Amino acid sequence: MKRNLRLGVFGFGCVGQGLYHVLNETKGLKAEIRRIVVRNPEKQRPIPKEFFSYDENVILEDPEIDVVVELIDDPVAAYRILKKALEKGKAVVTANKRMLAEHLAEIHELQLRYGKPVLYEGAVCASIPIIRNLEEYYDNDLISSLEGIFNGSTNFILTKVFEERKSYPEALAQAQQLGFAESDPSLDVRAFDPKFKLAILIAHAFGQFVDPEELVHFGIDRISSTDLRFARENGLTIKLVGRAFKKDGKVFGLVAPQLLESTHPLSAVRNEYNAVTVEGAFAEKQTFIGKGAGSYPTGSAVLSDISALTYDYRYEYKKNLQENGLVFSNEAQVEVLVSFSSGQVSHADFLKVTDGYRSGQTEYIRGQVSFDKIKEWFALEGVSVLLAPEAVIQPLTKKALLTV
Amino acid sequence: MKRNLRLGVFGFGCVGQGLYHVLNETKGLKAEIRRIVVRNPEKQRPIPKEFFSYDENVILEDPEIDVVVELIDDPVAAYRILKKALEKGKAVVTANKRMLAEHLAEIHELQLRYGKPVLYEGAVCASIPIIRNLEEYYDNDLISSLEGIFNGSTNFILTKVFEERKSYPEALAQAQQLGFAESDPSLDVRAFDPKFKLAILIAHAFGQFVDPEELVHFGIDRISSTDLRFARENGLTIKLVGRAFKKDGKVFGLVAPQLLESTHPLSAVRNEYNAVTVEGAFAEKQTFIGKGAGSYPTGSAVLSDISALTYDYRYEYKKNLQENGLVFSNEAQVEVLVSFSSGQVSHADFLKVTDGYRSGQTEYIRGQVSFDKIKEWFALEGVSVLLAPEAVIQPLTKKALLTV
Repeated sequence: MKRNLRLGVFGFGCVGQGLYHVLNETKGLKAEIRRIVVRNPEKQRPIPKEFFSYDENVILEDPEIDVVVELIDDPVAAYRILKKALEKGKAVVTANKRMLAEHLAEIHELQLRYGKPVLYEGAVCASIPIIRNLEEYYDNDLISSLEGIFNGSTNFILTKVFEERKSYPEALAQAQQLGFAESDPSLDVRAFDPKFKLAILIAHAFGQFVDPEELVHFGIDRISSTDLRFARENGLTIKLVGRAFKKDGKVFGLVAPQLLESTHPLSAVRNEYNAVTVEGAFAEKQTFIGKGAGSYPTGSAVLSDISALTYDYRYEYKKNLQENGLVFSNEAQVEVLVSFSSGQVSHADFLKVTDGYRSGQTEYIRGQVSFDKIKEWFALEGVSVLLAPEAVIQPLTKKALLTV
Repeated sequence: MKRNLRLGVFGFGCVGQGLYHVLNETKGLKAEIRRIVVRNPEKQRPIPKEFFSYDENVILEDPEIDVVVELIDDPVAAYRILKKALEKGKAVVTANKRMLAEHLAEIHELQLRYGKPVLYEGAVCASIPIIRNLEEYYDNDLISSLEGIFNGSTNFILTKVFEERKSYPEALAQAQQLGFAESDPSLDVRAFDPKFKLAILIAHAFGQFVDPEELVHFGIDRISSTDLRFARENGLTIKLVGRAFKKDGKVFGLVAPQLLESTHPLSAVRNEYNAVTVEGAFAEKQTFIGKGAGSYPTGSAVLSDISALTYDYRYEYKKNLQENGLVFSNEAQVEVLVSFSSGQVSHADFLKVTDGYRSGQTEYIRGQVSFDKIKEWFALEGVSVLLAPEAVIQPLTKKALLTV
């Protein structure tokens, strides 16, 4: 039986406005916005002032509001709002990937404790219904890996840089203008944002609540013109790829830019589009492609969550409950192409070197490295890491474990 | 609350065996196969004889069996089994697209009457969870169109013919050997199979129960070596594309081979893979790609349906219930490239001619034609129809309606 839902919305930025319009233009959904709480009373808004309040308790203390829709930037305030909403017996819909990734185990607990659901399809790959599919459809398929492009803003930038030969700052400015970029662009270009999404995906695909701090990541901000030339001369493109992978009872995860052959399915995913490929034991590879950024795609995902609440849908975190004995681990290695100048990297950093050369001031080494080494390099400005085409994560060999 | 399900399985061909293995290797699913009913007691089976019965009432009259899993070829027997199973209070899982397409309105009625669900994710694009997503996730997004590759066998054949320059009979034999083709290959190559799937998709995307007889379709069996050369010389590929589209209160549908630019997302879908692109008002284009044929991919979809029955999932046919006022129509036109010999086609058949030329014995005309004309040509051996690249279905103009 469908219920009429009364919504309290926090935030009226790009996604909030998208939701407002999507909701206004959709018939048949039994939900109405009762209140919108924003921080700044001075800011010009595209709809009349009487919709807005400036005190979060106007929503949280209103017993008539069933659902809190949390669409603000600040992860600390977002988590406080989420907790209080659940305590007050309200369901929560949020698209705040950072807040979710950093508190997912607690949010799971809170849902069990207060009996109210938290839905967040819009937090990962915007319009792609990946969480719902991992929860519901891949319930019994034994997922072995997932990989994809989880950040629309950086994919837009890489597309413009590669295909239209725009400069990096120019492409970034365009992404921001179109509303694809986070208000702090370093979250995107340094790959924090796709890391948060990978942490959420790992919870629903493998049942592990992984602290995003644990996940190794590398951004696109250090890709040099020499890297771009190298890619072009070899008929390759570069995408920021997130992946997680299960082997020998362990789950590994990594986000890093990768050189891809033109035949690789992800190389055809352009602009603000995202993609996720799920590999299962029986269904084999399944790819979902859709817009990963922008107010309407994210707004439509938030709307689908609200719609699901009208029939009391909730995530069950089935893989977590299955107690599959998996543990998260960074004891893994992968093949990379590293560029650097002035001796920051040496052959000794590699488990195995397959190639090396110099182009002007830039030196390149290609070979197998441990995840720990990639983490070290993240701290060294001037070192740029690209995964090799067809790179596959492998557990560290025993020998490598001894030497690391 | 999850329930323990006792399954009665009809048929032990390619999909039945896939299900048997998938079920054996999957932990955590509360379902067991009680009986398998097959037709032929003489046939060699890959598992011991004691699993099998040869009388359908062994399953249908057994009150302990909760779910009938119908995986036989014969659509008449399949529908009889489905009806009787529902009457007897059993849920049904089926992958029989022909039976479903031909009886979907009645099957909807029967589910309401007997209160038992029929699930059939495996019937459309095997492992791709498209029906579940149309039902659940795109509930409130206003879907404007869907298009895709719905037949794994013909896509495999076209891939082998294009990329490996195999002959058509050689590619067909290989598809059959790999278990991708229907036992009657004309269902695949003459595009009946994808037409059945399109009819099912239209029900879940637009709420219309369309008699598949009404849907205009064209196969790949008339694609000539001249057509192939034409495509290759122009840097194009050919895919068998199904599509449905909503405009001005009408729903149109068509399955036909189409010339595609190499940049078209469907041109990269190879071998037995299928793809579906759903376009919505807010989520914009969403593409699902996965294996569309083979015992394991289909078996895993059947398994996901069985799993969904453990928590009493059912399709709600929400778009049908919304009474959106849509009607199905064939009053449409599309741009095609038609090849023929000996005057079977003339300029007068076209609403607008854009090009025409001759290659050896074969004549070509390119232009806009009505759906009715494509239906006429289907009956004329020797006429081959390819949709033009970027072809878009358009409602017939008033002028064209007068002259048709």
